[in-house]
Amino acid sequence: MTVRFACAQIEVVPGRPDINFATIIDAIDKAKAENIDILLLPELAVPGYFLGDLWEQPAFLDDCIEYGNRIIAAADNICVIFGNIALDRTKHNEDGRIRKYNAAFIAQNGKLLKGALPYPYIVKTSLPNYREFDDSRYFHSLRKLREEMAVPIEELVKPISITIRQQSFNLGIMICEDGWTTNYSINIPKLLAKNGADVLCNISCSPFSLQKNPKRHQIFGEQAKDCHLPLLYCNNVGVQNNGKNIFTFDGCSCAYQNDGTLLTDSPAYEEHFLKTNFDPNTKLLTNENYIHNNYSEIAEIYNAVSYGTRKFLKQIGISKMTIGVSGGIDSALTAAFYVNLLGPGNVLLVNMPSKFNSPLTKNLALMIAKALKCNYCIMPIQESVDHTNTQMTQTQIHDYESNSAFSLELSPLARENIQARDRTRILAALASAFGGGFSCNSNKAEITVGYATFYGDLTGVLAMIGDLWKNQVYELAHYLNDKIFERKVIPDEIFTISPSAELSAEQTVGVGGDPMIYEYHDYLFRAFIERWDKASPLDILYWYKEGSLEEIIGCQSGIISKIFSTNKAFIDDLERWWKLFSGFAVAKRIQAPPIISLSRRAYGYDHREAQLSPYFSLKYHKLKEELLRN
Amino acid sequence: MTVRFACAQIEVVPGRPDINFATIIDAIDKAKAENIDILLLPELAVPGYFLGDLWEQPAFLDDCIEYGNRIIAAADNICVIFGNIALDRTKHNEDGRIRKYNAAFIAQNGKLLKGALPYPYIVKTSLPNYREFDDSRYFHSLRKLREEMAVPIEELVKPISITIRQQSFNLGIMICEDGWTTNYSINIPKLLAKNGADVLCNISCSPFSLQKNPKRHQIFGEQAKDCHLPLLYCNNVGVQNNGKNIFTFDGCSCAYQNDGTLLTDSPAYEEHFLKTNFDPNTKLLTNENYIHNNYSEIAEIYNAVSYGTRKFLKQIGISKMTIGVSGGIDSALTAAFYVNLLGPGNVLLVNMPSKFNSPLTKNLALMIAKALKCNYCIMPIQESVDHTNTQMTQTQIHDYESNSAFSLELSPLARENIQARDRTRILAALASAFGGGFSCNSNKAEITVGYATFYGDLTGVLAMIGDLWKNQVYELAHYLNDKIFERKVIPDEIFTISPSAELSAEQTVGVGGDPMIYEYHDYLFRAFIERWDKASPLDILYWYKEGSLEEIIGCQSGIISKIFSTNKAFIDDLERWWKLFSGFAVAKRIQAPPIISLSRRAYGYDHREAQLSPYFSLKYHKLKEELLRN
Repeated sequence: MTVRFACAQIEVVPGRPDINFATIIDAIDKAKAENIDILLLPELAVPGYFLGDLWEQPAFLDDCIEYGNRIIAAADNICVIFGNIALDRTKHNEDGRIRKYNAAFIAQNGKLLKGALPYPYIVKTSLPNYREFDDSRYFHSLRKLREEMAVPIEELVKPISITIRQQSFNLGIMICEDGWTTNYSINIPKLLAKNGADVLCNISCSPFSLQKNPKRHQIFGEQAKDCHLPLLYCNNVGVQNNGKNIFTFDGCSCAYQNDGTLLTDSPAYEEHFLKTNFDPNTKLLTNENYIHNNYSEIAEIYNAVSYGTRKFLKQIGISKMTIGVSGGIDSALTAAFYVNLLGPGNVLLVNMPSKFNSPLTKNLALMIAKALKCNYCIMPIQESVDHTNTQMTQTQIHDYESNSAFSLELSPLARENIQARDRTRILAALASAFGGGFSCNSNKAEITVGYATFYGDLTGVLAMIGDLWKNQVYELAHYLNDKIFERKVIPDEIFTISPSAELSAEQTVGVGGDPMIYEYHDYLFRAFIERWDKASPLDILYWYKEGSLEEIIGCQSGIISKIFSTNKAFIDDLERWWKLFSGFAVAKRIQAPPIISLSRRAYGYDHREAQLSPYFSLKYHKLKEELLRN
Repeated sequence: MTVRFACAQIEVVPGRPDINFATIIDAIDKAKAENIDILLLPELAVPGYFLGDLWEQPAFLDDCIEYGNRIIAAADNICVIFGNIALDRTKHNEDGRIRKYNAAFIAQNGKLLKGALPYPYIVKTSLPNYREFDDSRYFHSLRKLREEMAVPIEELVKPISITIRQQSFNLGIMICEDGWTTNYSINIPKLLAKNGADVLCNISCSPFSLQKNPKRHQIFGEQAKDCHLPLLYCNNVGVQNNGKNIFTFDGCSCAYQNDGTLLTDSPAYEEHFLKTNFDPNTKLLTNENYIHNNYSEIAEIYNAVSYGTRKFLKQIGISKMTIGVSGGIDSALTAAFYVNLLGPGNVLLVNMPSKFNSPLTKNLALMIAKALKCNYCIMPIQESVDHTNTQMTQTQIHDYESNSAFSLELSPLARENIQARDRTRILAALASAFGGGFSCNSNKAEITVGYATFYGDLTGVLAMIGDLWKNQVYELAHYLNDKIFERKVIPDEIFTISPSAELSAEQTVGVGGDPMIYEYHDYLFRAFIERWDKASPLDILYWYKEGSLEEIIGCQSGIISKIFSTNKAFIDDLERWWKLFSGFAVAKRIQAPPIISLSRRAYGYDHREAQLSPYFSLKYHKLKEELLRN
């Protein structure tokens, strides 16, 4: 006999149980039409997952329960397993609010199947509290419930017995992190297997990060093999955000055979209905072997940025975008992306030259607009900047303490910032006249050290490439030219000119460039933020001394000695950027736009930060002294 | 025999173990000089508490351990109990990083006293994960350790035996949340008492919120009484932040007798050395009864804003402030505050009129500057705004798809926003010329519904009054006049004019005012955000229908029927603000400045938010229909 499973890889809209309910009912109808026996839906498919503190609003929770009840009622002649919030109104969470579980409901013929818990649902055991995850803030775990009940966890983590066409077998149901067993003292899949599960099901709401899918295949494949059970994985698509970070959900639902092989999977970023057949007698999946997903890293980046931006803008109701184009690579890439996403008629590029902008970059900006066939205008800032400079330096300031007057002077840096902020003046006004929002074109290297003007270039509705290092920006720009547009919408010169802010005579393209040497600093900065154990100046200096720095941070071999002729030069550079990274750049990031998150660590609430004073450790000071003596 | 305890209410600087170490050594020296037997120091006194993800940096952790070892070595002829991070390098946290405990170390004669744990320190049991707290993100709890060790919690939560001058007794040591027992299934103080504690000690790093101290006295007083043991409470002073929120730590260390009475306490926001005497035979404190703290709510607000701003600016190295003064109450209050904090010579007020600003408000701005005896200038924006308007509407935009050109128009709202952002142009440039930062003057009502221009008035280094409702702004302004300056630095008219943005002819003071009627909307908005169970439109509408709304949200009786003549008018108003609160205002808050946090819920990482689409619940729609039928 064959049991027909399906994973409904649906799009979940966070905070909209009404929309998600309709999507789920559609999936159930489709499943019925296709004679599916057991339909899996994602974790928290009714409310969504990243909702911030909306979990504290009783009226919202009540709606999730109500829609959940309607889904249960709709599960006639089919078994529907779906994620939702579960409430126990007789108990409270440790914050004093109503007891909330992140739960899986198993509905069959309008009723819920019950397992070993005192509730008619499964409760998530392992609650992640790292990166963007705040599960313990909102949900009571099975571990805490077990503590209250004073019974061993083994007695609670049990499969659910189900009968399909007179055949009974045991479903071992996990919720997302329950399957990521590496660092937890409790191994849920093994407990389920030990307690008689015939097949493992993991319902997830698991955001995309680079390199996450291969990692998941490794962990879940081994899990299926170790437990000698097939494993079905159902994840949602869509975008959800925590305010500062936009996360994409690539879905990539799949099924593993009991030997750990990946048997079938769903395409990334598409709603999909993944069907698998299960034989309860042999405890094997009986699908044909077919695999959809195989993306290069740059294609994954493209897909995530593209999908994330499109869905996020749609969610906040923005269909037009204004972009400042300087003739540099960051704005060129951003412009090409938006034209691809929104259509050329919905994109307005504006070049905002001052007297420091070179004819070369001004011409490049125009070339991009022509190549992209979008809207374009030039709005010079010089007159307005001159006006500000004059106003600042010629206005008399009255000191009412001494009853005297004085005037102020502007430093070169202040004059640069005036220009950058003057462009925000134009972008914001233009966006409201054109409709929609305006784009923040900052990349991750700039955001790391705050190489951007407060209320200047670090503004906008979205930092689309804010989680990409400069080298990834170039790579992605080539990808758009080669694979998406299949022509050079981003001109060759943009790849070859030296990046420069063009805010002073010294910075004009052809004269001088950015203070960052991206071939090295991209990788140095990545070590500060993306390593699981964060690198500090001590680690960097130690690796430098040992000669392993280039290999460890991943930059090209030989570059460090090319850039720095002395230990002192290396240390001065390191300290300069570290002070910015852990100092003023934090203040800028606190007020920066949301970022499409791709890496294992994006700025925002993925990487949380306090404004602290930059700190160098005891051993760093020692090592520095040693290196400066030599 | 008498054991001499002292609580060192020190200032802890987050992320600076070097500074905190020096402070702690000073406290130990002082304690020795005063013949103290047992010195208590706060929770995480070495690293600080709100550090964001700095906890993931091994070099920082290593320094905390090193400084901890030096403190232990300094504890000769004295017992020092201090909070620090503890590492177990043989284990990992559930995020895969090194095992970290939020721990209390008990050092005597250069050695650590050991209790029932496998470690020579106490591990925090209850980890808070609500509001600003993210303990589970960083620390492994005693509950999880117990789970691994598979022993009952009772066997691990035990007092530490100590001998002072040949007399032995048992110290029951808790760390902060361990004492806030209301919602936890494990009661640490009771377990300590049951297991033989003779005195309870709670070392904390507990931020100030309004109404928190009375609540603490109630809980800890009852705890002392229930356990029939005296309780010493040691908390730090200083400011710490989580990026978006600046929290003040008021200290208020204190001691409760075994009948629950508050015996003695430390002043708020001052470093203080609180001495108490304990008799191990009678298990009683033998102090004279003296109480320092007794503040009105408005004095508490003043103290917190004042202390928080001063310490935060010092930490980020800002000693001068530029403030835009409109002649309205928010900027007047902010200006007076900064003059009081930084001195008149370090404050620059700037009035930035457009053609819509009335002579009345322009004159009020000048009056404030004169009364405060600070620096003042006028920088009109009209010329620059006209320039922007012209640039926006007269620049030809080329459409490279159709090879045609067009121009744009500006809506009235766009024209308002241009003015507000033009002021940021001036403020930011002026601040960099004058030195220091510029102030964000937005209050909590405005921030709730985004009644502020993106990159306009919602910018600045700090939103000093961003956690104050408009009615609190007025009250605090009176307090500054009456109690701090003892003269009318904020003129009478500012209290009586109707608040208005003056961004259009209709909004000019004397013509029209803000769309919010603060006497009602302050309280409505507070229900959205500050109630522990957040009020939604359903609750509001239900209370409105029942006639209990005014009482429940706390506004004056009779005001609602005065404002709204029909159910429809009430509902339209409710929906208007709810859509803004849960819609565009979220986007604005994500990029808003940090806020000095006072209430039980400040915008930022205290109240976490995702950008979602505004949602009205099922029952709301029903109730609305019912009310509109009537």
